[in-house]
Amino acid sequence: MSADTNTTTIQTDSIYLDNAASTPLLNEVFLEMMPYLRTHYGNPSSLHKHGFDAKRAISLGRRRVASIIGASDKEIVFTSGGTESNNLAIKGAATECRSRDSKRTHLITSKIEHESVLEPFRELEKDGFEVTYLPVSNEGIVNADDLKEYLSGSKTAFVSVMLVNNEVGTIQPVKEIANILRMTSKEILFHCDATQGVGKIPINVQALGVDLLTISSHKINGPKGAGALYVRRGVRINPLLLGGGQEALLRSGTENVYGIVGFGKACEINLLNIANNEREISIIRNHLVKKILKDIPDARYNGSRIHRIPNNAHFTISGVNGEDLVMKLDEYGIAASTGSACSSRKQKSSHVLKAMGFSYDEITGSLRISIGSQNTIQQMDRFAMILSQVIKELRKFSPITHQL
Amino acid sequence: MSADTNTTTIQTDSIYLDNAASTPLLNEVFLEMMPYLRTHYGNPSSLHKHGFDAKRAISLGRRRVASIIGASDKEIVFTSGGTESNNLAIKGAATECRSRDSKRTHLITSKIEHESVLEPFRELEKDGFEVTYLPVSNEGIVNADDLKEYLSGSKTAFVSVMLVNNEVGTIQPVKEIANILRMTSKEILFHCDATQGVGKIPINVQALGVDLLTISSHKINGPKGAGALYVRRGVRINPLLLGGGQEALLRSGTENVYGIVGFGKACEINLLNIANNEREISIIRNHLVKKILKDIPDARYNGSRIHRIPNNAHFTISGVNGEDLVMKLDEYGIAASTGSACSSRKQKSSHVLKAMGFSYDEITGSLRISIGSQNTIQQMDRFAMILSQVIKELRKFSPITHQL
Repeated sequence: MSADTNTTTIQTDSIYLDNAASTPLLNEVFLEMMPYLRTHYGNPSSLHKHGFDAKRAISLGRRRVASIIGASDKEIVFTSGGTESNNLAIKGAATECRSRDSKRTHLITSKIEHESVLEPFRELEKDGFEVTYLPVSNEGIVNADDLKEYLSGSKTAFVSVMLVNNEVGTIQPVKEIANILRMTSKEILFHCDATQGVGKIPINVQALGVDLLTISSHKINGPKGAGALYVRRGVRINPLLLGGGQEALLRSGTENVYGIVGFGKACEINLLNIANNEREISIIRNHLVKKILKDIPDARYNGSRIHRIPNNAHFTISGVNGEDLVMKLDEYGIAASTGSACSSRKQKSSHVLKAMGFSYDEITGSLRISIGSQNTIQQMDRFAMILSQVIKELRKFSPITHQL
Repeated sequence: MSADTNTTTIQTDSIYLDNAASTPLLNEVFLEMMPYLRTHYGNPSSLHKHGFDAKRAISLGRRRVASIIGASDKEIVFTSGGTESNNLAIKGAATECRSRDSKRTHLITSKIEHESVLEPFRELEKDGFEVTYLPVSNEGIVNADDLKEYLSGSKTAFVSVMLVNNEVGTIQPVKEIANILRMTSKEILFHCDATQGVGKIPINVQALGVDLLTISSHKINGPKGAGALYVRRGVRINPLLLGGGQEALLRSGTENVYGIVGFGKACEINLLNIANNEREISIIRNHLVKKILKDIPDARYNGSRIHRIPNNAHFTISGVNGEDLVMKLDEYGIAASTGSACSSRKQKSSHVLKAMGFSYDEITGSLRISIGSQNTIQQMDRFAMILSQVIKELRKFSPITHQL
C-alpha cells in the first residue's frame, strides 16, 4: 500500500507512527494547493477575478468537506482547526442556549475528551454553568445509558461526546447518545468532536444524529491551520471570532484559502480510500499488536478490541517510563507518542487513562502507536524489533518493577 | 523594482492594485515554506525529531516576527490572522481587567477601526461594558487630545486605536495616544491594530508605547491563515481558544507550522526592504495620484497627504458607483477595491468615510488603490488610461450627477 498512495517520501530509515498527532501532506493535496500558493492569492471577499477565483476554491473545498460527513455544504463553517471548532461549538452553543433561556445552564461531556473540549467546559463552569463529566469503562468507552440519569430535565442545554478517543482509539456510542437525547428532548444540542474519527471510519451526520461536529485537516493528511465545524441547518450558535462576517457570520477573518483547498482535497481522497484504508491499516495494526504482545513481556494492549479505529494501538509497558521510551525510539528514527501530543509538553499524567481506572505506574508506561497509509507490515516488524531492544535497555535501569 | 523582488508572476495584462485586501506570496516565502509542506509535517508538541523540527521552525518564525516590530520573541503569540488577534486582544484584555476590578468597564476605540475591532467592542457593550468611539477629522485621523476628555478616571480599562486605516491609509497618532494614557494611568491597556501598517512604515512597539499589537501575514506577502498578537511582557489577557495550552497558554491548537514559517520569512524580507519600498512605492503612488487628478474630472483624493502610508490611494469619483467601477475594471484585468474587502460582500456603506463626514453619494463613488512591490510606473500609466475610459463609459449611464 505504498506505490499508489502518493504520500510524502519519508527518510528511508525512519518510521513515522504518530499519525494521531499529525500526518504527512498527501502529494495530491499539495498539488491542489499549489496554484493557491503561487497564483491565486486574492482575498475571497474581493470583487474581482482574484477574489472570485479564491471564492470558487472555497466553495469546492466546502463541498468536499461536507461530503466526507454526509452534510450539505451550507452546513460547513471553516475554522483554523479542531481546537477552534471545539471552542466555537461548545462556547457558542452553551452561551446561545442560555441567552434564550436563562435556566438552561446544565451541560454534559465525558471525562475522556480532548483538552480543547474539556477546557472550554471548565471555563463555562467558572461562568456559572454546571457541567457533568460522564465516566467511562476500563476499556475507555462512555455508557450511553448512563446519560439518562445525568439529564437534568429542561435545564440540560448541551452535550458533547467525542467520536473517537485520541489516546486509546475507542469509538464512542455517539448514535446511541443522540437517540437518547432525541427521545428526551428536542431542545438539547449535541456536539461531537470527530477529529480522530474522520477518515478512519465512515461518518454520516444524519445517521449519527449530531447537531455540531468537529473536523480537523492535518489529522487526515491535509494541511495544518484548517478545520471545520458542521452546524446542522437551523442550529443557532454564537460566533467566537467577530469581524467581517465571513462564513455566514459564524467565523470572521480572511479565509485560509490554500488551507481550505488542501483540506477539501484531503477529504475527497480520504472518502475514496476509507474502506480500503480501514481494511489494510487494521491488518498492519493487528500484525503489530500480535507481535508486541508475543515479543515483549509485561506489555498490555489497552482500550477496546472491538470498538476501535483501525490505526490505533495503545500499550502499557510496565517498568518503563513512556517519555523515556518515546525519546529513545526517536534515536532509532521512530516517531511514537505517549498519548496526546497536544499538551505543549507539560508533564501531565493522562486524564483519559485515569478515567479508565489506570494506576499512576500504568499511566507512566504508556505508548501510543498511530498508523498511517504510508506505513507497511515490514516497518512494523522492524519497529517491533527495535522496541523490544529499547525496552530491554530501559528496564535494565528502571526503578519501577515491571509487573502488571 | 521588479527583477529582484522575487514576486509571483502575474498575468501579463492584469494589474493587481488590491494589496490592502491580500498580497501575492513572495517566492522566497514560498521556498521557505516548502520543506514544511513536504517533509517536516510533525506536530510541534511531539517528543520526536518530527516534532522538534516543527518546534524549531516556529521558534525561528517567532524571532523574525518579533524583529519587525522590535519585540522580544517571548512577546509574540501566533494566531490564525489579524481578525483572531484583534478579537483576542480586545475580548482578552477587557474581560481580564474586569475580572480583577469589576468597576473597570469603560473602553475606548475609534470610529474608523476595522470590523474585527468594532464587532468585539459591540459584543462587549452587550456584555455590560461602556464603549466610547473616538471621532476623526475629515482627513480620517483621530485627534489624540480628544482622548483626554473621554478618559473616565479609574473606570477606563482598555483603549484600541489602529495604526493605519485600511480604507484611506491614514496613519493614526498612536504614540501620542500612548503618551496621554501613560500620563493618566499606568493601568489602562493599549492595543493597536497594525495590520495595515506592518511592512509599510517602520514599527517599534517600545517607541509606540503599546501593550498589544496585531499583525497579519497575508497583508505583507506572507501566507493566509497566520497572524500574531504582540503581548508586552507582564500584560495579562484571557485566552479565546482553550485546549492544549500552546503559545504559552494564550492560544491553544496545533500551530499552523508552514503558515508561521512563511509569515516569519515575509517579516524578515519586509523589514529588510521597508525603507526602499517606502520610497519606491510612494513614487509610484504619487505618480498615479497626479495622473488621475489631472486626467479625470471630478475625482477627489481622500485622506491625508502627510500622515499616510506610501501604498494607499483613495478617491471619490463623482457620478460613479464604486462597485460598478471595480467590476468594470475587472473586465480589463485590473483588481481594485471600493474600500474594505473584509465585509463578505454585504452592500454596506463605509463607516470610515461616514465618520470622515462624507455624504452618501461621496461614499458610493469610492475607489481604493493599494500598491504592492510588484507594481510599476508603467502599470500606473496603463491603469490611469483604462480608468479614464471606464469612468467615461459609466458616467454616460449614471443617474448620479457627477459634481462634487
